[in-house]
Amino acid sequence: MDIATIIGIVLGMGAIIGSILLMTPDFGMFGSISSFGIVFGGMIASLAVAFPLKDVLALGTAMGAVFKGVEAAEVGRKGVADLENHVGNINSFFFRDGAQMVVDGYSLEELTEILNTRIDYRELRENTQAGLFKSMGTMAPAWGMVGTLIGLIVMLSGFGEGGTDALGGGMSAALLTTMYGAIFANLFFLPMAEKIKTRIVFSSTMQNLQVEATRLIHQKKHPIIVREKLNSFVPPKEWKKEDS
Amino acid sequence: MDIATIIGIVLGMGAIIGSILLMTPDFGMFGSISSFGIVFGGMIASLAVAFPLKDVLALGTAMGAVFKGVEAAEVGRKGVADLENHVGNINSFFFRDGAQMVVDGYSLEELTEILNTRIDYRELRENTQAGLFKSMGTMAPAWGMVGTLIGLIVMLSGFGEGGTDALGGGMSAALLTTMYGAIFANLFFLPMAEKIKTRIVFSSTMQNLQVEATRLIHQKKHPIIVREKLNSFVPPKEWKKEDS
Amino acid sequence: MDIATIIGIVLGMGAIIGSILLMTPDFGMFGSISSFGIVFGGMIASLAVAFPLKDVLALGTAMGAVFKGVEAAEVGRKGVADLENHVGNINSFFFRDGAQMVVDGYSLEELTEILNTRIDYRELRENTQAGLFKSMGTMAPAWGMVGTLIGLIVMLSGFGEGGTDALGGGMSAALLTTMYGAIFANLFFLPMAEKIKTRIVFSSTMQNLQVEATRLIHQKKHPIIVREKLNSFVPPKEWKKEDS
Amino acid sequence: MDIATIIGIVLGMGAIIGSILLMTPDFGMFGSISSFGIVFGGMIASLAVAFPLKDVLALGTAMGAVFKGVEAAEVGRKGVADLENHVGNINSFFFRDGAQMVVDGYSLEELTEILNTRIDYRELRENTQAGLFKSMGTMAPAWGMVGTLIGLIVMLSGFGEGGTDALGGGMSAALLTTMYGAIFANLFFLPMAEKIKTRIVFSSTMQNLQVEATRLIHQKKHPIIVREKLNSFVPPKEWKKEDS
Amino acid sequence: MDIATIIGIVLGMGAIIGSILLMTPDFGMFGSISSFGIVFGGMIASLAVAFPLKDVLALGTAMGAVFKGVEAAEVGRKGVADLENHVGNINSFFFRDGAQMVVDGYSLEELTEILNTRIDYRELRENTQAGLFKSMGTMAPAWGMVGTLIGLIVMLSGFGEGGTDALGGGMSAALLTTMYGAIFANLFFLPMAEKIKTRIVFSSTMQNLQVEATRLIHQKKHPIIVREKLNSFVPPKEWKKEDS
Repeated sequence: MDIATIIGIVLGMGAIIGSILLMTPDFGMFGSISSFGIVFGGMIASLAVAFPLKDVLALGTAMGAVFKGVEAAEVGRKGVADLENHVGNINSFFFRDGAQMVVDGYSLEELTEILNTRIDYRELRENTQAGLFKSMGTMAPAWGMVGTLIGLIVMLSGFGEGGTDALGGGMSAALLTTMYGAIFANLFFLPMAEKIKTRIVFSSTMQNLQVEATRLIHQKKHPIIVREKLNSFVPPKEWKKEDS
Repeated sequence: MDIATIIGIVLGMGAIIGSILLMTPDFGMFGSISSFGIVFGGMIASLAVAFPLKDVLALGTAMGAVFKGVEAAEVGRKGVADLENHVGNINSFFFRDGAQMVVDGYSLEELTEILNTRIDYRELRENTQAGLFKSMGTMAPAWGMVGTLIGLIVMLSGFGEGGTDALGGGMSAALLTTMYGAIFANLFFLPMAEKIKTRIVFSSTMQNLQVEATRLIHQKKHPIIVREKLNSFVPPKEWKKEDS
Repeated sequence: MDIATIIGIVLGMGAIIGSILLMTPDFGMFGSISSFGIVFGGMIASLAVAFPLKDVLALGTAMGAVFKGVEAAEVGRKGVADLENHVGNINSFFFRDGAQMVVDGYSLEELTEILNTRIDYRELRENTQAGLFKSMGTMAPAWGMVGTLIGLIVMLSGFGEGGTDALGGGMSAALLTTMYGAIFANLFFLPMAEKIKTRIVFSSTMQNLQVEATRLIHQKKHPIIVREKLNSFVPPKEWKKEDS
Repeated sequence: MDIATIIGIVLGMGAIIGSILLMTPDFGMFGSISSFGIVFGGMIASLAVAFPLKDVLALGTAMGAVFKGVEAAEVGRKGVADLENHVGNINSFFFRDGAQMVVDGYSLEELTEILNTRIDYRELRENTQAGLFKSMGTMAPAWGMVGTLIGLIVMLSGFGEGGTDALGGGMSAALLTTMYGAIFANLFFLPMAEKIKTRIVFSSTMQNLQVEATRLIHQKKHPIIVREKLNSFVPPKEWKKEDS
Repeated sequence: MDIATIIGIVLGMGAIIGSILLMTPDFGMFGSISSFGIVFGGMIASLAVAFPLKDVLALGTAMGAVFKGVEAAEVGRKGVADLENHVGNINSFFFRDGAQMVVDGYSLEELTEILNTRIDYRELRENTQAGLFKSMGTMAPAWGMVGTLIGLIVMLSGFGEGGTDALGGGMSAALLTTMYGAIFANLFFLPMAEKIKTRIVFSSTMQNLQVEATRLIHQKKHPIIVREKLNSFVPPKEWKKEDS
């Protein structure tokens, strides 16, 4: 589990609920099925027009992926340290494949090209997920505004009848939709798109390091050069020292 | 037919109509020929200034293309699996051309260059379509705002006469144009631009895979290397295994 | 003449005027020298600060270029088909220069480098024109807003005197400036910037095709390879077939 | 002196002052030390946080550079025409250095690399100046909005006391800050950032032409090829003809 | 200490406080725990969803880094001047590593590749910090708007009860949250993101210069070429002259 995501959502909901309770005990005023319906329904509708059906249906999976933690990192780094001895029991799927290709006698160019193509197209596929959340983050406020406009139009067209007193309540209800859209976008969808992007960069750094490691095994380079080359991918304070 | 697009539009219209009916039974208030006229007319006018006439006239075709489904994918993948045996009966137009060039004795460099140029310029042409929808998605709300400004100016200049009661109705009518612009943009044009872009990426992945496949036939590579190279374009769970 | 631009502007003005007449017969209310003055004057002022004087003075030429049609295309395509026979009477200035260089005995590398540099710097120069219109499209609404702010400040500071009745008229006049800015930007300047950009892409495609054609003449390639290579630049339905 | 900048600023101030005088003779209403203070003070504060101190202190120099004209162009073009004869008395600092390196016997690769690195890092340094003005152009309206918010908060919190009549004056004063921010950004800072960018492109074109010229001297190319290569950087109508 | 940042923040706070005191002595009106809570709490919540936990926890370190000054520059430039004599006592960690690799007998290609990879991945890691501040700069105003919406909804729904007089106070309190978000973003987070970006560019220029210097030591180039090559990275007025 990625606890940061959980903490963030709990903290965000707390900030919203807390600030409401400071102002009014009447919390029910902020619940509105119709506001939720137009923001969420409209957003899903825009998504269905914008993306292939199978990507929209995979939204649950993508959402789940945001909550799952990342464990690949440590494995990658550890595997790199003594990779010349234990090619057999490597945990990283991607790295084991590369090591296997060395054993199978692929040329250095073929090996590099195959692994790099794999990284490029994995990035491309994962960017679609990030794009899905990004679209949700721009569509939610847009539909929030549409909902508020509908509310205002209904309210204003009946302006003369209810008197000025009815104005406040109607406007309050209309603004609710804008608020729903803003919260959905800024607490959930935009940050989730960001997290997926951060992870794509992280995975690619790890895999580039593993491609380099595979190339170095293939070239049978001296261990010190191997260490220097692989160190260049990670921050100085995490470097493998001579005697480790 | 691309059912996702249909589902999306039906769902979006449902969300809008549903949220209106929850508030008022007087649905007619939301129909306005003049609001529709200025948003749609203005948008088409901006398009005609922005794009060559033949691109604007091909808008219907582009719109139709969004609703048509994509079937090329499966064909491409199947054709790749046993491509060395059945060069003759390949369904993909692009791939058959490449295979034909191998038979015709083009050099590896010429073949790669010709096919890559074709991909680049197909992307360029299809991006014009996406740009057309993108422009519609930014022009519709802009003209919605122009319409609302016109409505407000007319209403406010007659403010003293009608009294405060007339204010609400006029403002309600003025806001209608903004709402039309927002719905056109967020339910139709922006998502459609997105869908075309997603498809361009998908087609290019498929065609890059086919270029690689053609190159491998030309180089008469060992089937295992062919499989590894082509696998690197698709997600691991769709990989061709040794015995398939 | 590029009739699309004319049609667009006429249609756009029609949409605006029609929607006004539907609401009020008093059309004069929308004419305002001072609103026009601040939007147009301010915009030109920003342009003069932003661009070299000679680019601003060439604005008329750029504006004229938007209205002129494009005929270069057909010539380019026709010239390519039988280019080996009629090098002498080629209409395209750029292509004839390239063919002349082949005759003059330039090396393949020199010829390619000279022609590509020419394409790059033509793009650079034409992008300045597009940038000029883009700047006008962002400056017009900005100055519209400045005008509206000035109008509001004057009106509100005299609020107590005229009574509530004067409020509407003043606000109506103030909003006029915003409307002018929005119409200038969305009907004229932004679409014109877009059209220039579309044309730059089109010219570059044509010239890249002509560079390739020149290179093929230089290399004395077989006509079938020439046809295939040049076909890769244009959409499949416009391809030259074997017997044409 | 770059007269376009002066003309622009005078024209812009004229448009603003003229449109104010058309509405009210009471011009003093638009002068406000506190509005100027928060917009300008806040903007400089944001700049000091955003950029190294020496860049902020060099703001005056950058501002001066915007008003200075460009004379380098003519020199560059003239120098290129008969560069093989007069290497000694070239006005352009950059070009003379390149010619000196040819005399000093640098290899073609070293010479090209040194000059290109110099262009890259000059662009990098000048882009910092453009970035400074760009930041000012986004910070000025942001602080204008902060000032307006402060004004509105003070005014609204005392709403009950002064009565409705005080509302107009307070709001008018509050909007002044937004207007200051918009004028600073759209008449001064954003166009100045644009002008610096246009100049960077211009300088780089000139210097790329001079690098090419230096390379051609080094390679002792035939004058006709020299002319063709250098012509490719400038628009056709400015080309050196055979007999000039 | 980076005094510019301190000066900026003090100046910005002064501009805000000064402009408030000019309008009202009642400064307490601008302090609001609940406004601070929703803007700051919501922003941190969005960050926790958007970034890996360890990056969010390292926020304090990143904040501290913005206030720390940069001293690496002078060292780098001085070290370069007489680098052939004193390889041993170089202050720059990065440069000493490079010089050590020359001594250890790495090939020119290996050395260049290792150092360039190190620069690329350092940039990637530091860009995460800039991205963190950028996200805070967009999230703070977004949550400010959410807080204002909540305030408006509570106030408007109770509109009939309190009378028009209560309206001003409620709206004033609601706007406070928007103001908090705008100040946080424009005085702190956005400028800090900018400063980190400026520093990344500066560090990379320095390190590219050091890579070039290391390469020149490895190639045992003539001192004059060394001087010319290294000069090309810095502005002409800081160039090392022949006799220095």
